[in-house]
Amino acid sequence: MSVERSEHPFDAAVRVVALGGDRFAGHITPAYANMVGPFGGMIAAVLLNAVLSHASRQGDPVGLTVNFAAPITDDGFVVTARPVRTSRSTQHWMVELEQAGKIAATATAFLALRRPTWECTEALAPAAAAPATLAALPKGAFTPWINNYEMRFAHGALKLDGVEQDDSVSTLWVRDEPSRPLDFLSLAAMSDCFFPRHMTRRQRHTPGGTVSLTTYFHADAAAVTRQGAEPLLATAHASRFHATYYDQTAQLWGVDNTLLVVTHQLVYYRD
Amino acid sequence: MSVERSEHPFDAAVRVVALGGDRFAGHITPAYANMVGPFGGMIAAVLLNAVLSHASRQGDPVGLTVNFAAPITDDGFVVTARPVRTSRSTQHWMVELEQAGKIAATATAFLALRRPTWECTEALAPAAAAPATLAALPKGAFTPWINNYEMRFAHGALKLDGVEQDDSVSTLWVRDEPSRPLDFLSLAAMSDCFFPRHMTRRQRHTPGGTVSLTTYFHADAAAVTRQGAEPLLATAHASRFHATYYDQTAQLWGVDNTLLVVTHQLVYYRD
Repeated sequence: MSVERSEHPFDAAVRVVALGGDRFAGHITPAYANMVGPFGGMIAAVLLNAVLSHASRQGDPVGLTVNFAAPITDDGFVVTARPVRTSRSTQHWMVELEQAGKIAATATAFLALRRPTWECTEALAPAAAAPATLAALPKGAFTPWINNYEMRFAHGALKLDGVEQDDSVSTLWVRDEPSRPLDFLSLAAMSDCFFPRHMTRRQRHTPGGTVSLTTYFHADAAAVTRQGAEPLLATAHASRFHATYYDQTAQLWGVDNTLLVVTHQLVYYRD
Repeated sequence: MSVERSEHPFDAAVRVVALGGDRFAGHITPAYANMVGPFGGMIAAVLLNAVLSHASRQGDPVGLTVNFAAPITDDGFVVTARPVRTSRSTQHWMVELEQAGKIAATATAFLALRRPTWECTEALAPAAAAPATLAALPKGAFTPWINNYEMRFAHGALKLDGVEQDDSVSTLWVRDEPSRPLDFLSLAAMSDCFFPRHMTRRQRHTPGGTVSLTTYFHADAAAVTRQGAEPLLATAHASRFHATYYDQTAQLWGVDNTLLVVTHQLVYYRD
């Protein structure tokens, strides 16, 4: 008898089944549940998976914007991924996630075939102690999806002690738990790995949720492969909190000081 | 006889004509031409105008992502703006721009009715001398659309002298020319007012163009009105240039040190 190797929870949750044409069935497993509906990063990964699984796909993801329009329930859903314009080296996509006859999420994706050009990383990686010297966030903290990641905070951890911080900056090491080699799907999901900035800044538990998530992939396929299962150094901050919305800007850094992703989001929050 | 007041070039270029249902006709005037096709900021403004002109509109823009899928010619085009999900206080849109039977641009927009909440601006405005002390960019510089703006560079002007800079930061004062009171449409357009970061950094003229533009409006209607026709303080930088794509992050600041917009873009570039 063969020894069965169990599937990684990420692969189980991100899976899509081709329904023909532009349509794919998806079903995010309860392992990736958030407060209301699934972890937004997993929704982003599933929408991207529909694009990357499509017969017409050309190239690798460079830009992805996901809009969270309504809560998604534990039931299955259908993703429609439509290539709207393809050139020799670029491809634009429009994506919709439908559940119970209504659109619950939308996305646009940009794929490209990249070539070497003049190269420069202008941003600086944040300072952080080595992962082994930092405590891992205990299992069972906050909400279920977090159990699928190993997070080691170097700065700006969520304490919820009510002591307002001077800024909303968080810096942490993050990887899939159990450990899993990086791919574009897990990179898309990790772009949303941050606890909310409004809670980090105020250290109070108040309602909120991501409305729109934009991720720019500086990592090409070679960089994703090179990263393997090593932890990423992730850092995020907000620019302004105003009248129920704020923005977050974040970076994910990989091995050899490689800036893998720059990612931004618009977030709803309440007092 | 009444004295006719001529229409501002921005209003002429951004106009859309309702065709019924979700469809609007648009036609960007040559005044806003760029190297290839119209100025991307004006395309963003026209797509947003279709949303804001739609009978089902609810709220003001908070998030906007525009994808530039193909060059747009001087001919007219049709914009389809579709409200995909509306809640009590939020509204998600999908938008397509079609010309000659093909999709040339797409967008997603997020509108909301905002309420006062805990408020904080974490970002700091860039240092810049007062606009009156800085020279305005001469007319006729680079490409036509620039003539519709008054730009006064405090830092990181485009000299194209081939002397590579230490970073890609630019900071400038910008307003419509002739002067025009700010609205959400002109704010969307100004989010793309920056010369390309790859040219600013290397001070060389090389090909490139915006692929995707995401704008988060921290300005609500009251802040837009308060700004009037005063110049905005705009600052932009890139994080990484790699294999034909880089990202740009920018802020637009208004009177009373108000952060009006945070905006990001993904840009194609060649050597």
